[in-house]
Amino acid sequence: MSDSPAPSPASPAFAGDLAPDEFRAAAHAAVDWIADYLESATQYPVKSRVQPGAVRAALPAAPPVHGEPLEAMLRDFRDTIMPGITHWNHPGFFAYFANSASYPGILGELLAAGLNANGMLWVTSPAVTELEQLTLDWLRQLMGLSDGWFGEITDTASVSTFYALAAARERAGYDVRRQGMAGRADMPRLRVYCSEHAHSSIDKAVIALGLGHDNLVKIPADDSFRLRPELLEAAIQDDLAAGYRPLAVVPCVGTTSMTSVDPVPAVIRIARAHGCWVHVDAAYGGVTAIVPEMRYLMDGTDDADSFVVNPHKWLFTPMDCSVLYTKHPAALKQAFALLPEYLITRTQDDTVNLMDYGIQLGRRFRSLKLWMVLRAYGAEGIAERIRFHCELAREFAGMVHFESGGWELTAPVTMSLVCFRYAPAGLTEEVIVRLNAAIMERVNAGGDAYLSHTKINGRYTLRLAIGNIRTDRVHIDAAWTALRAAAAAESVPA
Amino acid sequence: MSDSPAPSPASPAFAGDLAPDEFRAAAHAAVDWIADYLESATQYPVKSRVQPGAVRAALPAAPPVHGEPLEAMLRDFRDTIMPGITHWNHPGFFAYFANSASYPGILGELLAAGLNANGMLWVTSPAVTELEQLTLDWLRQLMGLSDGWFGEITDTASVSTFYALAAARERAGYDVRRQGMAGRADMPRLRVYCSEHAHSSIDKAVIALGLGHDNLVKIPADDSFRLRPELLEAAIQDDLAAGYRPLAVVPCVGTTSMTSVDPVPAVIRIARAHGCWVHVDAAYGGVTAIVPEMRYLMDGTDDADSFVVNPHKWLFTPMDCSVLYTKHPAALKQAFALLPEYLITRTQDDTVNLMDYGIQLGRRFRSLKLWMVLRAYGAEGIAERIRFHCELAREFAGMVHFESGGWELTAPVTMSLVCFRYAPAGLTEEVIVRLNAAIMERVNAGGDAYLSHTKINGRYTLRLAIGNIRTDRVHIDAAWTALRAAAAAESVPA
Repeated sequence: MSDSPAPSPASPAFAGDLAPDEFRAAAHAAVDWIADYLESATQYPVKSRVQPGAVRAALPAAPPVHGEPLEAMLRDFRDTIMPGITHWNHPGFFAYFANSASYPGILGELLAAGLNANGMLWVTSPAVTELEQLTLDWLRQLMGLSDGWFGEITDTASVSTFYALAAARERAGYDVRRQGMAGRADMPRLRVYCSEHAHSSIDKAVIALGLGHDNLVKIPADDSFRLRPELLEAAIQDDLAAGYRPLAVVPCVGTTSMTSVDPVPAVIRIARAHGCWVHVDAAYGGVTAIVPEMRYLMDGTDDADSFVVNPHKWLFTPMDCSVLYTKHPAALKQAFALLPEYLITRTQDDTVNLMDYGIQLGRRFRSLKLWMVLRAYGAEGIAERIRFHCELAREFAGMVHFESGGWELTAPVTMSLVCFRYAPAGLTEEVIVRLNAAIMERVNAGGDAYLSHTKINGRYTLRLAIGNIRTDRVHIDAAWTALRAAAAAESVPA
Repeated sequence: MSDSPAPSPASPAFAGDLAPDEFRAAAHAAVDWIADYLESATQYPVKSRVQPGAVRAALPAAPPVHGEPLEAMLRDFRDTIMPGITHWNHPGFFAYFANSASYPGILGELLAAGLNANGMLWVTSPAVTELEQLTLDWLRQLMGLSDGWFGEITDTASVSTFYALAAARERAGYDVRRQGMAGRADMPRLRVYCSEHAHSSIDKAVIALGLGHDNLVKIPADDSFRLRPELLEAAIQDDLAAGYRPLAVVPCVGTTSMTSVDPVPAVIRIARAHGCWVHVDAAYGGVTAIVPEMRYLMDGTDDADSFVVNPHKWLFTPMDCSVLYTKHPAALKQAFALLPEYLITRTQDDTVNLMDYGIQLGRRFRSLKLWMVLRAYGAEGIAERIRFHCELAREFAGMVHFESGGWELTAPVTMSLVCFRYAPAGLTEEVIVRLNAAIMERVNAGGDAYLSHTKINGRYTLRLAIGNIRTDRVHIDAAWTALRAAAAAESVPA
């Protein structure tokens, strides 16, 4: 970037900001600190060890009257904030869905913060709208999907799914946008269907939209934790008989608890027969389509009405960056677009104004980091990393499976998540719950690995989720060693 | 930050990331570029001059197969992205609501991106939750508000208002969360009230919540563009007579078109009498409460149920950072909280888990930048900058007012926005619209200033919004010179 604009002597003095050199020094120090941190994250315990309230108590309870030097903030950041950080960038982070802020992603965030461009309208920074559309088209191509998908970046999958169901609600033909749903004799209950293993974001979307949690129908899954299409059909028939209106079905590619994959093609056939919108929750699992031999996991999604995939989960992009794709951008606009006078611009007919496709008006330049990630690694580099994570997961599953003495897998390994537990013969489920909770706590307290848990059909289960770009075999091995040691330690008194 | 963690030789090699040195070099180059850019932003035209589609067309239509060096991205950023940027950080940006990414804010974003911490639960990074709560309590104190406000950061004011009205809907007692609103004989239409000058985010929230746009009642304003309380009372009476249920009132402190201030105390008295939730839209104007002599503008808000204020507007914080404050966090939880097994943690009863107060699960470490901004400038420094912007606005308004030959103010100057137009005697409104649109276009094309427009009671009006931390008198003078030159040039053929 040697051609960067030289400070011009004609530039007016700043009205009231800090001295530029103070910023330069602090930002360079921060870059070095981040680089060191990412190279040595393993020296921190993955999970923060602070007690509730400790971070807040260590900082002044009131804001300063006078400004302070940036150096003071960096010191507090290091001494007070850092102990309260659970390290999502640690290669031993295996909880929830592990993710990572890769180098190109951090670089993109830095530049976006410097520009502070707002892409609410095309004209308010054309590059924000255009790079977002281009980058999402790149991602579509990487996933092997057909033309005709419109993408927009949102902050989280919860919002992406909320928007998709808002579009479905509008498209159902009751003019909900104008008339609302309350106090209308002409409107039936609208029903949404998903698997019993679906993510809570579907629940939240249905609640927020005013559809009612009772109208989210959870369809039982099969032994592989996949939504059972024949029960979906039966549920829809029951609802039709009761006078309800089936609105949408939300199958999942990569459920949160165990990364199971619903039979999307069968779901779509049923949904189409009943005029339902199909939104695929591929927030975690969607990126597997970038790996040629795993693309089958996304089979059927190309025929859906919308889907969500989160680059900030397993695509090495810093929080936040979720992508909503839909084939019906007009339905999104119908659900959300408004054009007050102060937002009318001359170019509006020729260009996409992303504010028309959701609630938010302001829009950060989030595509920059994603674009940099896609370029820095390329299609093959991304596939290689995702493939490697899945390989590590299979290796870990193999270690669990072949270990004698009570370790067991509790779900198939479809992606990079392993569900397992320690259940020596003869123990009741109640004891197994306590034992595994104690094992998890001991491992998490150890500092080299951080796992989370779930329940799968009532069985308490540990989850080892692999998704950090710096996770290698050594970290998996360390986790396994820590788990067995914890099991041995916890088993002694039993 | 000299005590930053030194890379340990014991750290394992990275599995598949770039060489750390490549990141160091690129990030240091980016810091220098940003520092230069902020010192010399005036050398760019404020408003991008690219044609629609030009940025996208200049970049490859397909993603790369192999990874590329970060240096290549920085080059494209500079050569291809930058021409497509409209410079919100330019001191001559006066459109919409001008804002700025200050040095401490950019530093905070950089560190947050490096950590990539996710504060969905307290335990997933305790510092994220605790610093957010502390920083928002600092902001509350700065605004002179009483204890008992619960704050959370959202991305935009639209989402903050959406959450507030979702809480109001839940608190109304119809169990909307569980039963929804459709197909219920026991539920009346729920009505929301705001001024005719209210922001489109209120419309979007009402639509998204399924209340129906028809049920948003726009109350006429007085000659100073303030909601008329007696007409609010009359509208509520009409609705009660029609069998509707008044749900919420949303007065505004700093309307988008002209920064008028609704009479919040009178609105609250009426709302209380009818059991309505009061949400104050102070997204732009709320920060004036940090300036002691302007605090009166927020009179009454301390008695509201919720309000929104946006640090990313006039508090020098990079996008995105909106704050929703409420006195009823339990109502927010009632509207949104869910606890699936995989999110249950041992500490949940003792700590706030911010995922329970909205739709989003993932949460960026956005408080870091705000905390750094508040510390870097301090209470007095912030007040001084906001005060200075208001002073500049009054000076500009004075220039308009005392200029002979047809310039006129179209609204009172209450904050840092000036509404004005060029309307020489004898011209029809139609000609005035064309003339002012042409003046604005000419000024915006000039590159030294960027203004937007609105309509105030049918009168086409230019808006000069001052909010960038680097805006000084010289930029206001330049805008005024450009405006008069444009008026002269456009008036010649008429």
